[in-house]
Amino acid sequence: MLGHGSGGKLSAALMREVFLPAFGNPVLNLLNDQAVVERPPGRLAITTDSFVVKPLFFPGGDIGSLAIHGTVNDLAVGGARPLYISAAFILEEGFEIAALRRIADSMAAAARACGVLIVTGDTKVVDRGKGDGVFINTTGIGAAPEGLELSAGGARPGDKVVLSGYIGDHGIAILSSREGLEFESRVESDSAPLHTLVETMLAATGRIRVMRDPTRGGVSSALNEIAAQSQVGMEIEESAIPVRPAVRGACEMLGLDPLYVANEGKLIAIVAPEDAEKLVAAMRSHPLGQEARIIGTVTSAHPGMVVERTAYGTTRVVDMLAGDQLPRIC
Amino acid sequence: MLGHGSGGKLSAALMREVFLPAFGNPVLNLLNDQAVVERPPGRLAITTDSFVVKPLFFPGGDIGSLAIHGTVNDLAVGGARPLYISAAFILEEGFEIAALRRIADSMAAAARACGVLIVTGDTKVVDRGKGDGVFINTTGIGAAPEGLELSAGGARPGDKVVLSGYIGDHGIAILSSREGLEFESRVESDSAPLHTLVETMLAATGRIRVMRDPTRGGVSSALNEIAAQSQVGMEIEESAIPVRPAVRGACEMLGLDPLYVANEGKLIAIVAPEDAEKLVAAMRSHPLGQEARIIGTVTSAHPGMVVERTAYGTTRVVDMLAGDQLPRIC
Repeated sequence: MLGHGSGGKLSAALMREVFLPAFGNPVLNLLNDQAVVERPPGRLAITTDSFVVKPLFFPGGDIGSLAIHGTVNDLAVGGARPLYISAAFILEEGFEIAALRRIADSMAAAARACGVLIVTGDTKVVDRGKGDGVFINTTGIGAAPEGLELSAGGARPGDKVVLSGYIGDHGIAILSSREGLEFESRVESDSAPLHTLVETMLAATGRIRVMRDPTRGGVSSALNEIAAQSQVGMEIEESAIPVRPAVRGACEMLGLDPLYVANEGKLIAIVAPEDAEKLVAAMRSHPLGQEARIIGTVTSAHPGMVVERTAYGTTRVVDMLAGDQLPRIC
Repeated sequence: MLGHGSGGKLSAALMREVFLPAFGNPVLNLLNDQAVVERPPGRLAITTDSFVVKPLFFPGGDIGSLAIHGTVNDLAVGGARPLYISAAFILEEGFEIAALRRIADSMAAAARACGVLIVTGDTKVVDRGKGDGVFINTTGIGAAPEGLELSAGGARPGDKVVLSGYIGDHGIAILSSREGLEFESRVESDSAPLHTLVETMLAATGRIRVMRDPTRGGVSSALNEIAAQSQVGMEIEESAIPVRPAVRGACEMLGLDPLYVANEGKLIAIVAPEDAEKLVAAMRSHPLGQEARIIGTVTSAHPGMVVERTAYGTTRVVDMLAGDQLPRIC
C-alpha cells in the first residue's frame, strides 16, 4: 500500500517484518537515518546502480541477487574490495509482500556470500501504474588499494584483451524468460560476484590496465568505451570469443549479435602483453574464470574503434550499440 | 527513449549532453564504473534515499534540489560532514530531455552550494506507463567525527526537545501544488541543506544526544521513533511549535495535523537540559534556525509514547502516522 512508503507505522512494519529479518546486522539495526561505519583502509571506491530488470525472477537469479552482484562487480573491476551496500526500494502499490520478502532474502544471501554488509536503506511506494513491481538501487562502497590505477583510459597499444568466459548468458536468459521462448537447452543468467576472481587476477600481475564487466551493451560497449577513453584501437578474434551453443542458437534465431548481449558475471581485462598468459592461467584456476582467454590486442591503428576478425577471415567494425536492443536487462 | 538506458550510444549521448555539463568534475569525468576518492577522516557515514516526489517541480524546489538536500540532511543529522553523492536516475520512456536537464542543473547547483561532489551515477529507462517521469536515488557519504555518538537510542529522561523552525511547509507546498489548491498566501517548500546549522549546533554543545530531520511522517514520526528506540516518553507543548498561518489554515481546510506533515529543511535535536538554552541561542544565530525553540521534554513516564499538551490545557497521544496521509511527498 502507499502507506508503506509514508514513514509511519506501515513503513516501520515493513522494516520489522521484511527488511530487518533479511538484512539485520549491528549497523542497520540502529535504524538511524545514516549508517556510521569504520572507514576502510586505502581510498574509497563508490558505485551506484538502479535495477529495473524484467522479469523480477529469471533462470539463474532475480532482481535481488542481481543488484548485489552488479554493485559488487562494479567495485571489483575497479580493484576495490566491496564492503558496504545501501539498498533502496521503489515499490509499486499492490506489489506482493511475499515477493518482496523473497527478493530481500535473495539479496541478503548474495550479500552474505560476498561478505558485504547492507548498512542502510530506503523504501518508497508509488501509485499503481506509476512503477513496475519493484525497482532497486544499490550503492556500494569499497576499499581501493593506494597506488592501484585501473581506469578506462589506461589501455596501451600492444596490450592484450582478456575475457573471463562465455558471453551472452544473462541477456538471453532474461529475454527467453520474458518472451516465453524455448530453446534446445535452458540458458541461465551468469549473474555472479567477481571480486574473488579479481583478487586472484591482481595477485597474478601488477600490469592490468583496465577491467570492465560487460553488462548493458555487452562486450562491444565495454571495449568501445575503453577504446574511446584510451584513444586506442582494438582488434578482436571472433573465433576466440566463447559463446555457448544455446546462446548462439538463440542469438541467430532472434537476430542478435552475442557481442552486444549483456553479461552479469564476466569481465574483460586489458593487460600488458608480457603478463597476458600468466593472467589467463591464474584466471583459469578460479571457478569463474575457467574459460578465460585472450580475445584480442590493443592497437595504435584506428583509435577509438573496435574491429573484429571474423571466422571467415574478413574484418568488421564492432560499433557501440545504437538503439535499444534489449531494454531492462538489469 | 528506452535506448537511453541501454548502455550504448544513446546512454553515452545522455551522459555527454546532460549529466557531464551539469555535474562534471575530475572524478566523474573519468567515466569509470566506480569513483575512487581519497578517504575522509574519521568514520564513514552512509545514507540512501530514493525520491519519487510528485509534482517534479514545486514552489521552493524540485526533485533535483530535494534529492541533494535530503541526502545532505540525513548525513548532517548524524553529525557527519557531507562529501560525496551518487546520483541514479530511473526515467520513464518519453520523459523530456529538457526537463531532465533542468533537474540535473538544479541538482548540480544544490550540490555545489553544499560543497558535495557528485562522483558517480547511473541511468535506467523503463517503458512508458511503468515509471512516472523520473525517480532519483541519491546515496551520500560523509565524514563522521570519531567519538561523536548521535543515535536514535540516545535520549534520556530530562533532556529537552528542540525544533529548528516552522513545520509543515514542505508537505503543504507539495500538496497545494499537486492538487492545484490556492491558499491566502503561497506556501513554499522549506527544502534546504542543514549541514552548516548542524556544525553551529555541534560547536555550541557536546551534549546533543540525537538529531533527526522530520521528513516523511513529520515531527510526530521522528519523535515516536526516538521515543521507541530510546525507551523514553516525550511531552511536547502545542503552543511552542511554530506553524505559519498559511500552513495552519491549509491543514485545517484539509483535515491535516501539522505534526504529521513533512519538512525538508528542519531538524529536531534532543539535548541535555543544562545546554538547551545555549543550543537554541546558537541555532538562532544561523539563518535556518532563527525560529528555533524548546518544544518539549523527555520523560521516564510512558516510554515509547509521545504526548502533546494542547493549547486548551488537555493532553493527547501523538501516535505514529497510521496510513498514507501524504504519499509521494519526497
